Amino acid sequence: MADDKSIIDNETNNEVPFSGALENKASENSRRKFLGQAAATSAVIIAGSASAGNLPPDVPNWSRTLGKPVNTNPYGVPSKYEEDVVRKRVPWLTPDSIASISFTPLAEINGMISPNGLAFERDHGGVPTIDPKDHRLMIHGLVEKPLILTMEDIKRYPNVSRIHFIECPANSAMEWKGPQVGRLQFTHGMTNCCEWTGVPLKTILEEVGVKPEGKWILAEGADSAGMSRSIPMEKALDDTLVVFGQNGEALRPEQGYPLRLLTPGWEGNTSIKWLRRLEITEEPMYQREETSKYTDLISPRDPNREELIGKAYMFSWIMEAKAIVTFPCPEKPLKGHGKYIMNGLAWTGTGKIKHVDISFDGGINWHEAELNGLVLDKCWTRFSFPFEWNGEEMLIQSRATDEHGYVQPTIEQLREARGVSSIYHNNAIHTWKVNKNGEVESVQV
Amino acid sequence: MADDKSIIDNETNNEVPFSGALENKASENSRRKFLGQAAATSAVIIAGSASAGNLPPDVPNWSRTLGKPVNTNPYGVPSKYEEDVVRKRVPWLTPDSIASISFTPLAEINGMISPNGLAFERDHGGVPTIDPKDHRLMIHGLVEKPLILTMEDIKRYPNVSRIHFIECPANSAMEWKGPQVGRLQFTHGMTNCCEWTGVPLKTILEEVGVKPEGKWILAEGADSAGMSRSIPMEKALDDTLVVFGQNGEALRPEQGYPLRLLTPGWEGNTSIKWLRRLEITEEPMYQREETSKYTDLISPRDPNREELIGKAYMFSWIMEAKAIVTFPCPEKPLKGHGKYIMNGLAWTGTGKIKHVDISFDGGINWHEAELNGLVLDKCWTRFSFPFEWNGEEMLIQSRATDEHGYVQPTIEQLREARGVSSIYHNNAIHTWKVNKNGEVESVQV
Repeated sequence: MADDKSIIDNETNNEVPFSGALENKASENSRRKFLGQAAATSAVIIAGSASAGNLPPDVPNWSRTLGKPVNTNPYGVPSKYEEDVVRKRVPWLTPDSIASISFTPLAEINGMISPNGLAFERDHGGVPTIDPKDHRLMIHGLVEKPLILTMEDIKRYPNVSRIHFIECPANSAMEWKGPQVGRLQFTHGMTNCCEWTGVPLKTILEEVGVKPEGKWILAEGADSAGMSRSIPMEKALDDTLVVFGQNGEALRPEQGYPLRLLTPGWEGNTSIKWLRRLEITEEPMYQREETSKYTDLISPRDPNREELIGKAYMFSWIMEAKAIVTFPCPEKPLKGHGKYIMNGLAWTGTGKIKHVDISFDGGINWHEAELNGLVLDKCWTRFSFPFEWNGEEMLIQSRATDEHGYVQPTIEQLREARGVSSIYHNNAIHTWKVNKNGEVESVQV
Repeated sequence: MADDKSIIDNETNNEVPFSGALENKASENSRRKFLGQAAATSAVIIAGSASAGNLPPDVPNWSRTLGKPVNTNPYGVPSKYEEDVVRKRVPWLTPDSIASISFTPLAEINGMISPNGLAFERDHGGVPTIDPKDHRLMIHGLVEKPLILTMEDIKRYPNVSRIHFIECPANSAMEWKGPQVGRLQFTHGMTNCCEWTGVPLKTILEEVGVKPEGKWILAEGADSAGMSRSIPMEKALDDTLVVFGQNGEALRPEQGYPLRLLTPGWEGNTSIKWLRRLEITEEPMYQREETSKYTDLISPRDPNREELIGKAYMFSWIMEAKAIVTFPCPEKPLKGHGKYIMNGLAWTGTGKIKHVDISFDGGINWHEAELNGLVLDKCWTRFSFPFEWNGEEMLIQSRATDEHGYVQPTIEQLREARGVSSIYHNNAIHTWKVNKNGEVESVQV
């Protein structure tokens, strides 16, 4: 084969656009070499550097013809070959598509930034089309000087840009009673992580002058649901932002254009979208979405705790530590034996991720993963772990620990605390079962 | 006016979607309050908190009707009210739109991330449409084991995600001889800053085994221009990446989909897009785009230095420290007297930005700006500076200093060193003249 003048891709048997002598069977030794960690299993090895030094005469069509003009799309769009990488709904999950959810395709996401076109959305009355010239933010109630601000006013305040995750408290809710959706996009895709630009709410509250008895803030959206939540003053004065920018550009419509609240690390729906009103109050307002919904119903299995029956946790704001393996996963199975790099995402609403542990045997043995890239406050954190797969079944788990020592619980621990009637705040350790054929499914162990 | 039942926006005189008593003349004292830094000049003050405490009965139309279904666009798009925020070409700058440039609208960009749809592009033979299944990367030349990799192979290596700017060395080139373009988008918009995900080139070079005499790498693109540059081995082994991801998703077509090189901090065109070939060589290959183009022709004005006439700097790779004020700017004039927050971007290919200074008088007096948010290596860094404007003319400048003490030069200093025939590497201090009507123009002083 060493003198063959064409190169055959050893996976597809198609002629590939390089020529020269080749050895079309990849060397297992060479594959194993790369840092002793993983292997490029379909790599074609070119035998002999002499002929390989020649320029490849067989060039692909796209090198032979002029490309598209610059700025064919003044606002750029992804390659047509990425058209399957989109947000998706779970049709049976909500009665209609107005008050619904579309999920981030986490298996296809790299790094710590969710691109704006793929960031999950959860709306309660559809996505309003708001003209920013006519949008107003009113701040009133227990204040010295109530104000109505235009978007131009808001942009004139000092602003900050911070990278934070948002997670719907219903993320992974479908998994409380066992696996119901077979894809990472749907088990964990109610989260995104963007660079948000906005004005610290503290700045605006200093401008209006909060009266001493003002301890809560009702935040209300301009959508048809009038989505509203009560925010305690401590959070408002801490790190809450009034946001107009998302990953460098204006907020996307489904993320609250032109203005939203951002309560970093808290239940996504407290980050009120299409923000139109902030009313400073003495007490929480007990809105629909913090009483009949977004509370955690307790159904104790221990009969000695029946005093808890019918009770619920309210104002369980913080999204606690959670880690999920994004490769391998149902959408990204293993393809053949060999070395791989496991990848995943971890986050916590309490601050920074301290470490992430990996198990291959359903939680019996644990190994510390490497945290990759920046480890920021209330932000997606990447982790990885090299492994070799020889075709055996595996039960892959990941377990996050936050900077305060909180350890992500098992589903059994969550059920022990809350029973099985809960919907929100399922941050349980998740299990991917890798089958002998390399395919991955969601299981509970 | 205090008992009026409607609220009139004091800028537009339109009725705005809130009701209650009002004082439609904004209080200058209140405006000046916010942190003593800036003012929301069109804010409507609601007089009396009693009536302001009522819910606003006059709600906008978009609150009265159901919004659009979730996932109307499975791949999301910006609001229709942002349709003017796009990349643009300068028609006279290039003979056609195939080998051309489109510029980032920097005046509209927040934070440190360029959204993928707005990131500048510079192409030499148009944007090829590459099927990732058929794309290959060949690594050959002075190596022990030449390789041809598929995209799947490349994604199997350990990868990293890093936020870095890219800047075309021709950025601000049009300003060498004086202002020629009147917008920030065109004076400085040949830069973007994204989170890039890819494999360290070092990893791939270790896999192929570089021979001791291999000191350079020719990187070649699969576009019709066969765009190619010679990269020294030191840079390749340092922080160069083979990139497939951009802000969390696949590279955009105009950024090199499916694969590009990234040489952080270096001339943008060394980050070869549509990367198809890496040839390890003993010497640089002296390609078209590093000899006849992308060199810095010297035309000394000092007759004692005529030995330099006809000579040029070659391989001037590093994009040195540069800062630009993004507000105010021609696209974003001042609107009325009062307090403002100046905003800007700084970056350097040598590492981190150390500080940025601001002048209001064309470089006579300087004031240190505040650096905002993360200060990362070879990455856009935000700065801000509060100021009050009382209607006088101003000559606003910004001047970056990098972590090694290098100070951004004046245009005079650059001309002293290189004359006026140079095109590339104009990192001169830029001047915005603010006129008495608040409008801003590009000048040289």
